[in-house]
Amino acid sequence: IATVEPSKGKPPVTEHSVVNLDHGDPTLYVEFWRGTGDRATIVIPGWQTMSYFSDLVGFCWFVEPTFEREVRRLHRLVGNAVVDGYHLLVGTGSTQLFQAALYALSPAQDGSPMSVVSPAPYYSSYPSVTNFLNSALYRWDGDANFFGGDTCIELVCSPNNPDGAIRKPVIKSESRKTIHDFAYYWPQYTPITEAGDHDIMLFTVSKCTGHAGTRLGWALVKDVEVAQKMVKFMELNTIGVSKDSQLRAAKIIKVVCDGYELSPPSEANRLFHFGQRKMKERWSRLRATVAASDIFSLPNEISGYCNFVKENVTSNPPFAWLRCHKDGVEDFEGFLREHKILTRGGPKFGVDEKVVRVSMLDTDEAFNMFMNRVASLK
Amino acid sequence: IATVEPSKGKPPVTEHSVVNLDHGDPTLYVEFWRGTGDRATIVIPGWQTMSYFSDLVGFCWFVEPTFEREVRRLHRLVGNAVVDGYHLLVGTGSTQLFQAALYALSPAQDGSPMSVVSPAPYYSSYPSVTNFLNSALYRWDGDANFFGGDTCIELVCSPNNPDGAIRKPVIKSESRKTIHDFAYYWPQYTPITEAGDHDIMLFTVSKCTGHAGTRLGWALVKDVEVAQKMVKFMELNTIGVSKDSQLRAAKIIKVVCDGYELSPPSEANRLFHFGQRKMKERWSRLRATVAASDIFSLPNEISGYCNFVKENVTSNPPFAWLRCHKDGVEDFEGFLREHKILTRGGPKFGVDEKVVRVSMLDTDEAFNMFMNRVASLK
Repeated sequence: IATVEPSKGKPPVTEHSVVNLDHGDPTLYVEFWRGTGDRATIVIPGWQTMSYFSDLVGFCWFVEPTFEREVRRLHRLVGNAVVDGYHLLVGTGSTQLFQAALYALSPAQDGSPMSVVSPAPYYSSYPSVTNFLNSALYRWDGDANFFGGDTCIELVCSPNNPDGAIRKPVIKSESRKTIHDFAYYWPQYTPITEAGDHDIMLFTVSKCTGHAGTRLGWALVKDVEVAQKMVKFMELNTIGVSKDSQLRAAKIIKVVCDGYELSPPSEANRLFHFGQRKMKERWSRLRATVAASDIFSLPNEISGYCNFVKENVTSNPPFAWLRCHKDGVEDFEGFLREHKILTRGGPKFGVDEKVVRVSMLDTDEAFNMFMNRVASLK
Repeated sequence: IATVEPSKGKPPVTEHSVVNLDHGDPTLYVEFWRGTGDRATIVIPGWQTMSYFSDLVGFCWFVEPTFEREVRRLHRLVGNAVVDGYHLLVGTGSTQLFQAALYALSPAQDGSPMSVVSPAPYYSSYPSVTNFLNSALYRWDGDANFFGGDTCIELVCSPNNPDGAIRKPVIKSESRKTIHDFAYYWPQYTPITEAGDHDIMLFTVSKCTGHAGTRLGWALVKDVEVAQKMVKFMELNTIGVSKDSQLRAAKIIKVVCDGYELSPPSEANRLFHFGQRKMKERWSRLRATVAASDIFSLPNEISGYCNFVKENVTSNPPFAWLRCHKDGVEDFEGFLREHKILTRGGPKFGVDEKVVRVSMLDTDEAFNMFMNRVASLK
């Protein structure tokens, strides 16, 4: 049986091409998965997964049981989230589950739209995804540090996109609800210091294993009524989630867990160790280049004891939050674009335009080209 | 390489179990796909389809080129829609594309929410999917036959879910926009009398090939700005669509087209002929049973010349729209539920409760059990 014709993805980077580091396209991980050979290959016969239904006796009828099993196994392996007592939902990426969570937590008790806030710099998609349908249930209310009310949903992204900071909620009110966006709470990016046990925790394979094109996320939800309302959102929005994606993600996650639990401890078997090494190498190079420049700066390095690798490690955020101090450069995103580097500027994250977010997750070719070009800027 | 562990789907029907014909779960088609052996099997290596991006030079960055190619080929084969000059978009089922279309066509020019209407009986999901986020862009405004305004989006489902009627728009105003829901405009259900050439046409693999669990639909869109706005919706709602689902659907549709264009003309190769025979057999049995009863009735049979099979055929709708005339039965859905048959009652479609929608697309076992139970009702 022939394998699929390769999806093209982004065109390769060449000496004269634009380097696109605007999105966090996780193609860094392709190298690891090429190394797994057939072990992570999925085979789906034509007559499989045809029904709408995945599991009529489980909590959620559209969650594939093998996917749920492997995800719970992964969290137990890594120790980044409590799974016992939690309901597991699947989504078309964590973006869809974010909207499901807003739907489940809204509106406020007085019937007015629920305020949705997050401290700046916040993930650039939060405002647009919250507001694009102009829902009367919820509305984006900006930087949580300047929020004057009590009742709200606070989005807690930790490590934070874009700047890698470790975050706790900043709103102290008792009527504040939270959604914890844990897309980057994996050992290759940050020390795993505790198992998250929050009300709603969102994860995605995109940033864990690198399979962004599979569009698969999951949520761990404590309260059964909130989880049921999120299921309702998923039914209305897309009548569940691709089974093919779930079965593929289950296989991928199984290979990750097997790599730690059943295989010799080589990097070829250990995704997080591969990722940690790659990220650390890139961050060392970037920090050296920035230190040698007079015009750039980065957030300070964070380190801590990681319960997963059982040693002190420095964090290696998925994005570089790069600031420019060069006189005359007001629009840093525009300045880099002139030098054929696409990034995402501060204003999209609620801050000034002398800072940009740069993906650290792209191919070696793209990262090397980026480093060469940045090093040449004075 | 081991194939995936089978997804469970619905439990098998037994003599004493409930027969669930509430949803249009298209498991009728499993038999056909089992017969295709390995030809429709998909194999995806672990390192494939990892990027977010499918095609940065195409109209839509998240559409897989092989999927687009096979879909256009399929429409040319069947003749049910014009594809030249149309933009093709993919969605997580046509339900998501329906919402993308509402977003793209709203709001009304005066800024008020766009009215969304369809003549009763209308698909039961239209009101809830339109209203669940309480959007200020659009709102469900009920039965199109009673709509008093001019500006609106009319949903034209043809053949119509639930009653199989062939439909044209009923609102005559020039400021009426349309979304054509063509989920069932395939030769197994209805004669293909013309190639649709409307502004927005929605299709889904669920009801064409039976792969509901793959959650894949597509839209053919004439106007480039409307298509771009639909792309924007897809970006915000789910950052594109599962590549795995797209590649699987591409393979499935390729096998359908190959079966007509490259293979001997046996039913084992010809999906629509298989589907037409199965549906015709079921409808013959149901019509005979209803004719022999004193208490049931069905819509009249429709027939016409089908450009695809090149002969006169009767339509075989995906749902039976069954009416009960028995004295004392007010709630027909409830009456059938007492007899262990789950259906969907008229009020969900905007009409009275003496009529129900019954799926004709389930397994032989479920259909046979349904027939036995219906035949015993007096």
